Amino acid sequence: MTVPLRVTVWNENVHETTEPAVAARYPEGIHGAIADGLAERLPGAEIRTATLEQPEHGLTEEVLAATDVLTWWGHVAHDRVSDEVVDRVRRHVQGGMGLLVLHSGHYSKIFTTLLGTTCSLDWRNGEDRELVWTVAPTHPIAEGVPSPIVIPQQEMYGEHFDIPAPDELVFISSFSGGEVFRSGCTFTRGHGRIFYFSPGDQEFPVYHHPHVLRVLANATRWAAQPDRPRAAPTIHQRPEPDWFLDD
Amino acid sequence: MTVPLRVTVWNENVHETTEPAVAARYPEGIHGAIADGLAERLPGAEIRTATLEQPEHGLTEEVLAATDVLTWWGHVAHDRVSDEVVDRVRRHVQGGMGLLVLHSGHYSKIFTTLLGTTCSLDWRNGEDRELVWTVAPTHPIAEGVPSPIVIPQQEMYGEHFDIPAPDELVFISSFSGGEVFRSGCTFTRGHGRIFYFSPGDQEFPVYHHPHVLRVLANATRWAAQPDRPRAAPTIHQRPEPDWFLDD
Amino acid sequence: MTVPLRVTVWNENVHETTEPAVAARYPEGIHGAIADGLAERLPGAEIRTATLEQPEHGLTEEVLAATDVLTWWGHVAHDRVSDEVVDRVRRHVQGGMGLLVLHSGHYSKIFTTLLGTTCSLDWRNGEDRELVWTVAPTHPIAEGVPSPIVIPQQEMYGEHFDIPAPDELVFISSFSGGEVFRSGCTFTRGHGRIFYFSPGDQEFPVYHHPHVLRVLANATRWAAQPDRPRAAPTIHQRPEPDWFLDD
Amino acid sequence: MTVPLRVTVWNENVHETTEPAVAARYPEGIHGAIADGLAERLPGAEIRTATLEQPEHGLTEEVLAATDVLTWWGHVAHDRVSDEVVDRVRRHVQGGMGLLVLHSGHYSKIFTTLLGTTCSLDWRNGEDRELVWTVAPTHPIAEGVPSPIVIPQQEMYGEHFDIPAPDELVFISSFSGGEVFRSGCTFTRGHGRIFYFSPGDQEFPVYHHPHVLRVLANATRWAAQPDRPRAAPTIHQRPEPDWFLDD
Repeated sequence: MTVPLRVTVWNENVHETTEPAVAARYPEGIHGAIADGLAERLPGAEIRTATLEQPEHGLTEEVLAATDVLTWWGHVAHDRVSDEVVDRVRRHVQGGMGLLVLHSGHYSKIFTTLLGTTCSLDWRNGEDRELVWTVAPTHPIAEGVPSPIVIPQQEMYGEHFDIPAPDELVFISSFSGGEVFRSGCTFTRGHGRIFYFSPGDQEFPVYHHPHVLRVLANATRWAAQPDRPRAAPTIHQRPEPDWFLDD
Repeated sequence: MTVPLRVTVWNENVHETTEPAVAARYPEGIHGAIADGLAERLPGAEIRTATLEQPEHGLTEEVLAATDVLTWWGHVAHDRVSDEVVDRVRRHVQGGMGLLVLHSGHYSKIFTTLLGTTCSLDWRNGEDRELVWTVAPTHPIAEGVPSPIVIPQQEMYGEHFDIPAPDELVFISSFSGGEVFRSGCTFTRGHGRIFYFSPGDQEFPVYHHPHVLRVLANATRWAAQPDRPRAAPTIHQRPEPDWFLDD
Repeated sequence: MTVPLRVTVWNENVHETTEPAVAARYPEGIHGAIADGLAERLPGAEIRTATLEQPEHGLTEEVLAATDVLTWWGHVAHDRVSDEVVDRVRRHVQGGMGLLVLHSGHYSKIFTTLLGTTCSLDWRNGEDRELVWTVAPTHPIAEGVPSPIVIPQQEMYGEHFDIPAPDELVFISSFSGGEVFRSGCTFTRGHGRIFYFSPGDQEFPVYHHPHVLRVLANATRWAAQPDRPRAAPTIHQRPEPDWFLDD
Repeated sequence: MTVPLRVTVWNENVHETTEPAVAARYPEGIHGAIADGLAERLPGAEIRTATLEQPEHGLTEEVLAATDVLTWWGHVAHDRVSDEVVDRVRRHVQGGMGLLVLHSGHYSKIFTTLLGTTCSLDWRNGEDRELVWTVAPTHPIAEGVPSPIVIPQQEMYGEHFDIPAPDELVFISSFSGGEVFRSGCTFTRGHGRIFYFSPGDQEFPVYHHPHVLRVLANATRWAAQPDRPRAAPTIHQRPEPDWFLDD
């Protein structure tokens, strides 16, 4: 890796700007908490943030072209994300940009577009404790975290989670109510690596949890392909046999 | 299975109506050839056809609601398929309707929408022989066909085929030029089972080939879930712990 | 399927013959309970049982050759199963016989031999309730059972379960203690289909639970290939190009 | 990675010591050619070789304990590898040692033991050209090699290759005769990462091919986990609920 890792932390930033309790929990926004956590764990990385209210949601062609990994947090404003920006992000993912989709981002346009399913699930905002168990102990995303990660208070996300069978299932969570959830899943779309990680909520300080932040840092490294020229797969006509001998 | 299997064979039906050579090869259209082949191999099944030029492309809500498995062939007119119909088909697939995507259907709106990738590939319309090798010999879709299936003349479809890693890789093809292709792949989206099968072209009589038709009949049976009520996964709030005890 | 489905239910049958409480719970042995449950749910099937203390553990060449699906329950006597019989069973699985490995069978010689891993796990024999959640709702093994299946009392089996990534993950269980387990997994080895299902213990009446028995019946149907000649894959020299044209 | 990568290149070394033509092709043995190729591409790595005729085949407990990745080439002498050494290698793989199984190593005791299948295939030692196509373009093992890699002369290895469905399918090969082969496959067993790569034969100078050596170097890096303490998964009894709170 010859250049610094470039990360863009995206957040809709609505709860933080409209609910004092959330603002108190995340004084610099969920994006600020994630960016700080990544900066601490990825020394040398260039980390910027972007939010919904910015022009083009802060995700211009230039920003994405200079982003190795994009993290995505959204909840109440999925439908305010413009289709044009979603399409641009999709193109960049297919071209090799890494994407981390977080928690309620399961219902974002970009995630459902890339996965082709409804991404629906069961949920309860109660008094649950979440335990995050590693089921792929050799996966680099699970490196350095205990199994289980104990999250004292969390929103319950339960099966059935309507996703395609993931390429790799890294984590399974359980909740006090007995529900389970495939909470850490990898997918590939085109040249891009995608990781979905469900722990994290505006109501709880999950993005201050050191093991959660470690997973996000691991996943950022895993999803990054800084040496790959950004280009989605394309169709090729090969009229001549043995065309590959000149390659 | 208490009711007859209900199959709808869809075709854009453009080559057959504009090119005499194709019309001669497929006098009842590619859809007619496929429908005949399925009828012969799926006794008792109700098989209908639908084409692009019909109102709503012949794929009304009523037709889809009465379809266990839809087969899809398109090539030059993908962009003439209305987004509304694509969205309707996607909903039905997620709700449990089986979908067989054939050959140049790899670039159809419905396939790229469900897969989330570009579905691009390499191709050459030359003098290739295609060999279709079974790599999942216990899969019901491969039942009763030799490995390889020999197709004397075919368009070459080669890697890289930009699809997500399939749930199951059933067939791999090679071509005279040495190219290879993941030619038989299964996917699941929501409650629906999807099979992509690449052999088949308007320029060659591939849809008269008995082993190709056998694969399509096998795949139709595999993808059908006639006893499942048609409903896509949905979100559920579960406010009460132990909510499942009443189920 | 032109012949009746032939099932052999194997059990080490040690707890039942040495512990009165287990004998009271399973008067005809765990094998008897499973055989009865399958017989009720698979009308027309020929179901026999076999146990450790029989000559060749009841698994002669003749018995296996006449078995479409073998179910395996063992616990304290894994090391009393002869290597010769294990080898014979392995050959039949690779040749197309279905295999259902149940509960503590995770540590059997046949399972570890076929999987290539230690198959170790976490466990606690306490007061746990097990919930069995479906994560592959279109899989035939999950047909007709609620999600979750509620098992009031069960031994806890938890991650990390040291198995290869399964072909298909059908069920995930949680326990009162918060542990999770990949409790329903499919694998393929050679021509044989394998299903591991963890619910079931000598200390609890799990094999009288109707939904557990339904899963076993579904899995039996899924694993059976009665029309396949019993033969493991073998090496072939193909000295002549185009050897397949005569096939 | 705080210590140098430690690689042991194992070879049965029989062809080279009994057939002058092979000795001429590989003057330092196939192991020598592989070791040189890795040394050039993995600067700083400690690369040693070991062969069948050495005491304990050169694979003592001490050697394996000091090996991050073991590469395995064997062909005519699989049955001369002692079961004790195979068992030792298996334990180390399950404990986290990487394993690269090469070409005719498909039939080695260590590979069939870890995979649980016969690993049989089709073959022809003729005049075939092999083309190695990348089907997982984002996989680190495929980094920096063209698709296809062109190998002018090679033994044909064809489907059906009797392996479990691989975790990841990285390469598919085709041959002049039209056969195809899943030539680059990853598997996980316990804590160990395994890569099978079929190109390579004693009759052809394949281990002097720069792209083949690049794949082996990539795979070595991918399989290595130098910071993981060598330990296979083990069973744990967890008698107390919330045992994980002290972790």
